[in-house]
Amino acid sequence: MRILVINPNTSEGMTRDIHEEAARYARPGTEIETTSPAWGPRSIEGHYDDIVAAAATLEVVRQRSDDFDGVVIACFGDPGLFAAREISQVPVVGIAEASMLMACTVAHRFSVVTVLPRVKPWIEDTVRLHGLEARCASVRTTPLTVQDCERDPAAAEREIVRAGRLAIEEDGAEAICLGCAGMGPLDKAVEAELRVPVLDGVACAVKLLEGLLDYGLATSRVAGFKQPEEKEYLARPPAAPSAA
Amino acid sequence: MRILVINPNTSEGMTRDIHEEAARYARPGTEIETTSPAWGPRSIEGHYDDIVAAAATLEVVRQRSDDFDGVVIACFGDPGLFAAREISQVPVVGIAEASMLMACTVAHRFSVVTVLPRVKPWIEDTVRLHGLEARCASVRTTPLTVQDCERDPAAAEREIVRAGRLAIEEDGAEAICLGCAGMGPLDKAVEAELRVPVLDGVACAVKLLEGLLDYGLATSRVAGFKQPEEKEYLARPPAAPSAA
Amino acid sequence: MRILVINPNTSEGMTRDIHEEAARYARPGTEIETTSPAWGPRSIEGHYDDIVAAAATLEVVRQRSDDFDGVVIACFGDPGLFAAREISQVPVVGIAEASMLMACTVAHRFSVVTVLPRVKPWIEDTVRLHGLEARCASVRTTPLTVQDCERDPAAAEREIVRAGRLAIEEDGAEAICLGCAGMGPLDKAVEAELRVPVLDGVACAVKLLEGLLDYGLATSRVAGFKQPEEKEYLARPPAAPSAA
Amino acid sequence: MRILVINPNTSEGMTRDIHEEAARYARPGTEIETTSPAWGPRSIEGHYDDIVAAAATLEVVRQRSDDFDGVVIACFGDPGLFAAREISQVPVVGIAEASMLMACTVAHRFSVVTVLPRVKPWIEDTVRLHGLEARCASVRTTPLTVQDCERDPAAAEREIVRAGRLAIEEDGAEAICLGCAGMGPLDKAVEAELRVPVLDGVACAVKLLEGLLDYGLATSRVAGFKQPEEKEYLARPPAAPSAA
Amino acid sequence: MRILVINPNTSEGMTRDIHEEAARYARPGTEIETTSPAWGPRSIEGHYDDIVAAAATLEVVRQRSDDFDGVVIACFGDPGLFAAREISQVPVVGIAEASMLMACTVAHRFSVVTVLPRVKPWIEDTVRLHGLEARCASVRTTPLTVQDCERDPAAAEREIVRAGRLAIEEDGAEAICLGCAGMGPLDKAVEAELRVPVLDGVACAVKLLEGLLDYGLATSRVAGFKQPEEKEYLARPPAAPSAA
Amino acid sequence: MRILVINPNTSEGMTRDIHEEAARYARPGTEIETTSPAWGPRSIEGHYDDIVAAAATLEVVRQRSDDFDGVVIACFGDPGLFAAREISQVPVVGIAEASMLMACTVAHRFSVVTVLPRVKPWIEDTVRLHGLEARCASVRTTPLTVQDCERDPAAAEREIVRAGRLAIEEDGAEAICLGCAGMGPLDKAVEAELRVPVLDGVACAVKLLEGLLDYGLATSRVAGFKQPEEKEYLARPPAAPSAA
Repeated sequence: MRILVINPNTSEGMTRDIHEEAARYARPGTEIETTSPAWGPRSIEGHYDDIVAAAATLEVVRQRSDDFDGVVIACFGDPGLFAAREISQVPVVGIAEASMLMACTVAHRFSVVTVLPRVKPWIEDTVRLHGLEARCASVRTTPLTVQDCERDPAAAEREIVRAGRLAIEEDGAEAICLGCAGMGPLDKAVEAELRVPVLDGVACAVKLLEGLLDYGLATSRVAGFKQPEEKEYLARPPAAPSAA
Repeated sequence: MRILVINPNTSEGMTRDIHEEAARYARPGTEIETTSPAWGPRSIEGHYDDIVAAAATLEVVRQRSDDFDGVVIACFGDPGLFAAREISQVPVVGIAEASMLMACTVAHRFSVVTVLPRVKPWIEDTVRLHGLEARCASVRTTPLTVQDCERDPAAAEREIVRAGRLAIEEDGAEAICLGCAGMGPLDKAVEAELRVPVLDGVACAVKLLEGLLDYGLATSRVAGFKQPEEKEYLARPPAAPSAA
Repeated sequence: MRILVINPNTSEGMTRDIHEEAARYARPGTEIETTSPAWGPRSIEGHYDDIVAAAATLEVVRQRSDDFDGVVIACFGDPGLFAAREISQVPVVGIAEASMLMACTVAHRFSVVTVLPRVKPWIEDTVRLHGLEARCASVRTTPLTVQDCERDPAAAEREIVRAGRLAIEEDGAEAICLGCAGMGPLDKAVEAELRVPVLDGVACAVKLLEGLLDYGLATSRVAGFKQPEEKEYLARPPAAPSAA
Repeated sequence: MRILVINPNTSEGMTRDIHEEAARYARPGTEIETTSPAWGPRSIEGHYDDIVAAAATLEVVRQRSDDFDGVVIACFGDPGLFAAREISQVPVVGIAEASMLMACTVAHRFSVVTVLPRVKPWIEDTVRLHGLEARCASVRTTPLTVQDCERDPAAAEREIVRAGRLAIEEDGAEAICLGCAGMGPLDKAVEAELRVPVLDGVACAVKLLEGLLDYGLATSRVAGFKQPEEKEYLARPPAAPSAA
Repeated sequence: MRILVINPNTSEGMTRDIHEEAARYARPGTEIETTSPAWGPRSIEGHYDDIVAAAATLEVVRQRSDDFDGVVIACFGDPGLFAAREISQVPVVGIAEASMLMACTVAHRFSVVTVLPRVKPWIEDTVRLHGLEARCASVRTTPLTVQDCERDPAAAEREIVRAGRLAIEEDGAEAICLGCAGMGPLDKAVEAELRVPVLDGVACAVKLLEGLLDYGLATSRVAGFKQPEEKEYLARPPAAPSAA
Repeated sequence: MRILVINPNTSEGMTRDIHEEAARYARPGTEIETTSPAWGPRSIEGHYDDIVAAAATLEVVRQRSDDFDGVVIACFGDPGLFAAREISQVPVVGIAEASMLMACTVAHRFSVVTVLPRVKPWIEDTVRLHGLEARCASVRTTPLTVQDCERDPAAAEREIVRAGRLAIEEDGAEAICLGCAGMGPLDKAVEAELRVPVLDGVACAVKLLEGLLDYGLATSRVAGFKQPEEKEYLARPPAAPSAA
């Protein structure tokens, strides 16, 4: 079984971390390849980053997904997830959906602990799009950027534990979903401190995909995930996006 | 990895069918043992059956679950699921939750196709307890009893396909969750006819459990699934329940 | 009019307290009999206790309910309520539903004040099953066990008042539902301190049942509360549940 | 116990019918007085009628309610209900809320069968204001005006039965709330045909009030139902509303 | 274009303030006339005031609206709004709905900052009636009466800023809707302090009406806003409401 | 006042139609410029088209929006709307949100009539993201592609009227939002046939923007719509997307 993990962030260090996390929990016989788009934001912290990264991620999906049995989109906003399902021949799982769905089997309600306060409405919309509001106790933010998680994991861990503790004590969370792929490597360390299940979406997505594939499930084609209609796409000129 | 599948229905034929379905999709190295309680209803079609079967199932959980790495409760109403989590040292997954959560990764919305009309409110409550109303297009019933599925699979298949088609065409379902463990063996046949993903909860629960266990997740103990408090339980006298 | 009040907890002292509360508010001519199952947990504080007590309660319903005009299930999680409706010829009311429905006539929103923090998700599920989320301001817990209410009512009262005050001041509660049958005798004392309506479900259930019966209403038999289907129930062996 | 039933419609025939229904189900010792405002619409079939009737009803509440132990507002839109609670010293119950709350004890979901199609959004708003959407299967309309119910009860019965049957068969209703006080006298006849519980709000409101009063519950004064603030009200000039 | 702004409060000073606010943001060519009912409460702070003021406001609508192209109801509870749509030939917009709908275009979620704590449930019902719960972060109250806003604007501003700050910092509000017409003149001052969009409903309603009218939209007549049925209205006797 | 209308579809004919619609309802003094991205899909009918078009639209926003007072995104899925708010100095309104918000002022509930059945889940997600589920009676599809609306308006009108009629008669819609910018020119013709308000989002967005700007409202910067964080964006290579 071959799984393509796409990190929509273009940070190479983060892609390496994600690869290690995916590979750590993949079962023997599951081959993980991790990549990131050729262009787009180094990190994703809001709606604009999300759309640019989604478009770039979809190019990877178009070019690479047919060589794999399944695809993981490894950013907690699940950028381009539904679109990827339309253009991929194989199942596609997002890490927000994966960690939240798996959390539902070990907890009545989970909280998401994520990066900067600015992403809270975006993550809440993600929860809502997946229809999981009733299972989500809260979205808790930290002062961390995505890259802080990579640069100083020890400091990141402290902030995640602090926010997670508030989620458990004040919001009724019984599990914590790590709301950024960059936080994934900290899962077991945070779990050891908080003493509730802590879920990294990358690990969860790999496990869900293995399960989907073993069972022979494919993306539904009857309505919302039909292949795109045949139509003309105007070619993109060479101009590149710079910082907003 | 050893998984205990408990069929809360006391029908032996159904237990055999469930075992085959679970074993078919378990990966190599996963050992499946399937059992059913020593007492209780032959089939579960409503609230009363559900409670009696839940109590009987919990006895199996208490006696057997410590010898396994995970437990599946194989009846679509998920009888005793939350209670089983309290008393089991290992993760417990219900087949309603498993099939609905997995359906979320291949479809915007799923429908449940189940047995007699009388179970509709009970199944709708199950959807609601899992917080998945926004993802569930409808609960569609058939004229089938649980045992009809076992006795005449060909006729059952026709009814399931008929109800599934209505769910797709009128309710907007993009996938079908089979709303009874007894329907499980028909999953791929129904899928071939309906041409949307068709999910049997037994298969889904085994795959989810394998994933949970690979990732090292355990049931949260911080609130709703804490072990029961120490307390006196009055011994149950030998009197047996007969039909209501 | 004869009403059977079943205390699903097997504590005799609590059963006596419940009987007094029910009898206090029954109108002249309403005969109250209060009983508890022959087996099961002394107190109910979570999902496992709930299922065992529900099964035991259903035996009482099967054996006794035909001699009465209505039945009250006197534990705030409403254990076995929907199942009891299937097997009883007469109306059955749960104390959670009763107190919450009556609270709706005197307050925009009520809070439930209940026992240990561990029961919060279970009680929240109860609110959700009854479809009353929009009317429930919060579920507030206390450090009390069910039996603490019986053993030290004065201390219990202090805890209930403290939690109720927070519900009023921070959550917007305009009434308090006592979230445990054992708290019932404290209703008027707590009300005197909090100065908002305080509702004990036992009293409310008796009053609702009297009303239902006067008006000649019976449980709907058209779908979810139909009598159980005819089927074989395997006899329960004499083994008794001990503490989990 | 003295209960004042106010028919917000100014039709005398309807007021008499309501009185009979209330008196029929009041228990011995409950004294029912039924009245209607001195001005306002003969029947209430929409928002404008509702507001005018609410204002007129509130005058009755102000003038009369202190002589009673409880008040019923007998129009299914519950006109002026929350305002009446502010100005009345005694509990006030609306017939929409009463029939829907009582229906919750005998059915998973109820439908409302009411008058002209134009009232559907108004009744749906009433369901929503009471927070009972999850319990309401549908609001079904008929070609009946309010006065048709009074003028030709046999024809009204046929229409109500027809709409009720659709609610049961297509919408999943397990009980029917009669969505107009004028339909009340038909409750048992419709029930005999539909074979599910049929609830008239007038009867339900009387029973709920008797229960509230026996239990000593009063309207919460802590927030939304506080007595109006002291303030100047400009006197209403003698001009009367004529037809819109 | 001629717009009639009706202040349901009978305070003349407040009506003048509202007129200035409406005129300030009306575009050239929009003629604003502002009036208040001949009778009713000087200020509206709850359900009773709301109903009386609604009835009085509807008289103004009946008598005056045909001479205008659109009507604004200038009290945050939107008293009589749906009824006014039934009896007016021209579009009618309420200030609660206007400010909340416009807030949706500049913020994920808004909070309402309003007067006394007692109005919170009433305002929450208003949010709910407009179906905007998911966009409303919170309703925050102040110690202010409606008339305090008129009497001491500087003090009112301080209270509004304090409550708005809590809404932003604790509830996740990204914009503030001023929950009382009397707060309107403070919009830009509060905005300067809070540094998020602050919306006065009077200004918003005028702008929405101008838009509706330019586009040629009229109130739907197909169901809930049909003209009232022809029927008899009993004449209102000359007696006037005094303070409750 | 200068408004930039961006048609995320790259069809020039459609852009011309949109421009005419926007200009028709803009008030004197509002200057409309309509454009479309230099690349991307000729028409948008699903998630993949949506993301590609969103990315292309955001380039237009970055390059052009500072020369305008407001921006309209003229595709019913509101592609890139929230991202555009982050990177634009001026307010941005989407046509789905605009037509739905304005519909709320003339109807209790609206339906969206849109193109191919495949877009239904995507449009339902759009409704959900805007939090307007309670106001949306249904999303009705037609056999029309986006380009069919442009190529054969008469045939398109027939299909829209047919679907709109079903929405009114079966779903309870009181107004119709045209669920595709290409349907805009048909608004008044469809309205004449259906006799309920019919709303084109382009017209609505222009009117809303004029209102926002007159009132001086700007996008909230406090959380979800903050400007993107400073970060590195890898340059996009010249490769162009072709059809999926």
